Amino acid sequence: MAHKKIAVIVAGSWGTALSRVLADNGHYVKLWTRNAAQADQINSERRNEKFLPGAILPEGITATTDIAEAVTDAEAVLFVAPSSAMREVARQAANFLHKEALVVHATKGFESDTLKRMTTVLAEELGRPEQYIVVLSGPSHAEEVVNRLPTTIVVASKDIACAETAQDLFMNEAYFRVYTNPDYIGVETAGAIKNIIALGAGLSDGLGFGDNAKAALITRGLAEIARLGAAMGANPLTFAGLAGVGDLIVTCTSQHSRNWRAGSMLAQGLPLAEVLERMGMVVEGVRTTKAAHALAVQHGVEMPITDQLYSVLFEGLSPENAVGALMGRVRTHEIEEIASASRNKWLKG
Amino acid sequence: MAHKKIAVIVAGSWGTALSRVLADNGHYVKLWTRNAAQADQINSERRNEKFLPGAILPEGITATTDIAEAVTDAEAVLFVAPSSAMREVARQAANFLHKEALVVHATKGFESDTLKRMTTVLAEELGRPEQYIVVLSGPSHAEEVVNRLPTTIVVASKDIACAETAQDLFMNEAYFRVYTNPDYIGVETAGAIKNIIALGAGLSDGLGFGDNAKAALITRGLAEIARLGAAMGANPLTFAGLAGVGDLIVTCTSQHSRNWRAGSMLAQGLPLAEVLERMGMVVEGVRTTKAAHALAVQHGVEMPITDQLYSVLFEGLSPENAVGALMGRVRTHEIEEIASASRNKWLKG
Repeated sequence: MAHKKIAVIVAGSWGTALSRVLADNGHYVKLWTRNAAQADQINSERRNEKFLPGAILPEGITATTDIAEAVTDAEAVLFVAPSSAMREVARQAANFLHKEALVVHATKGFESDTLKRMTTVLAEELGRPEQYIVVLSGPSHAEEVVNRLPTTIVVASKDIACAETAQDLFMNEAYFRVYTNPDYIGVETAGAIKNIIALGAGLSDGLGFGDNAKAALITRGLAEIARLGAAMGANPLTFAGLAGVGDLIVTCTSQHSRNWRAGSMLAQGLPLAEVLERMGMVVEGVRTTKAAHALAVQHGVEMPITDQLYSVLFEGLSPENAVGALMGRVRTHEIEEIASASRNKWLKG
Repeated sequence: MAHKKIAVIVAGSWGTALSRVLADNGHYVKLWTRNAAQADQINSERRNEKFLPGAILPEGITATTDIAEAVTDAEAVLFVAPSSAMREVARQAANFLHKEALVVHATKGFESDTLKRMTTVLAEELGRPEQYIVVLSGPSHAEEVVNRLPTTIVVASKDIACAETAQDLFMNEAYFRVYTNPDYIGVETAGAIKNIIALGAGLSDGLGFGDNAKAALITRGLAEIARLGAAMGANPLTFAGLAGVGDLIVTCTSQHSRNWRAGSMLAQGLPLAEVLERMGMVVEGVRTTKAAHALAVQHGVEMPITDQLYSVLFEGLSPENAVGALMGRVRTHEIEEIASASRNKWLKG
């Protein structure tokens, strides 16, 4: 395979870890950041200490604060900006993007005000159809990827040629295995919504409940995010894959997850404002709970776990009462609940 | 609800924990064990120290070594014997079982020589059709249930009235939530096969791989056990539920699991015979790997993870090479792999 020039935007922990994968595969990576000190540290010391402490980055990565330099002539551009910044960086990159360049994104979240998916935001700003944009997702702590621990992810695009081009860029035999999936909407929504369940898992652990309760929460949570995803056009089977249950497991069972930690602090009775202040950074699950709550209403989908978390976060419900409400529901037939997610176009014929 | 007389066979950790649930719900439980000292300890000290150290059992549980006393007049019998002992205890109980008594089992495994499911073994020995037998499964450490931590499980029977009778017996608002599912074959096979993946998870952790690798293994493992289950007549959606992914999560992320511990010892280079000797008790995942390997051949189903584990356990393949073989497979489309499980009768129409 020919080695390519690839732009990565921005140099957070996930962008930097994916840059290492691309550089390990022989590609020339331009890693963009607004922060000149960070760019200097990457170029002169091969480190990105704030986001991936301890990791030494390969020579194939060059950091730059000049978006024109990063994007011009790039054969592929990987967007990994926070969801709140995606529209603005895409707008800046659009001026320099070659029309044949492959566009990939690996950001998990919705645009807050519009509830739009990231591919929609990119399509609008880059002036190309959603179907040619590739979504990269899956169970992947950046800290493990940068240390070359075995990892599998999914690249999804409606256009299979785009997905396979991305697969060839990222896949290697040493530690990074890549599957394709045509259901980019499913891969994208699964990655975005899963943070709600991570918040719930932290809440459950913080209340002193055990592994049985957490496994039930993850399983029931998976069913409800699959229902919302299906209503938004996703294939429910995607939620049984790496970007669905795989990512959910990594996020809900790791105490390194910000969302988990926020949930466990809420369980101890701290009000949301104080939790967010103590965290000192964005807790995606809080924003996503609000977004998913609105999307559930919009699409007429039942999401009992999301509803209870919404009430805890924004309406003052006590965490104990939230769990009580979930446990006390009337007796139910499991398959009917799961199957309601699968009555859509993907499973016909 | 009327309080009933219920027999539980035998007094292992899960049988004892489920006895507590039934007693908490007001039922009169006769808990059968072969061991007179164990029966004495339960009756006089309200403890079952070998299987649930520290737990105090309620008065509603009476232990007995007389199977006639346990089963005669019982309105329901719960079988929780090890898979290797199920046929024999069922044969003994059959002599005293009232023909209208509800039969439930909560045992995870196949009969070794015949590869039969436990409902088939019970149906043969009790002389009643499989469809009236209820399977109880789900994410449930016995240690948490006996301490009344919130738990959700599934009761499955082709006959919905049987499943709902079992649901009424076990469900309570305090800590035990019960769903029904008509797919008893799926619930039963999911519970039995999942121990293979737990063994693999221990292997992965023992090799020093991270959460990314383990989440991938669980996700890919779920897809392959769903494929086998579907070939055996299960509804693939059951594997997305509590008895499938729910139980898999609890088993693979807990270091208390025997299967996980056996896998992690194998990763350290110990031969199987020595691992089994050090464990000093049955490791279901080892027997199940052999059974699933045979069932996969019989049903013509691809099970790459099971194949690699089989080679590690019985053919001397090194754990490193097994993981290498799994990571190095040709590039693949994810949805096709998952979807192959769903092309069966359950998802038609």
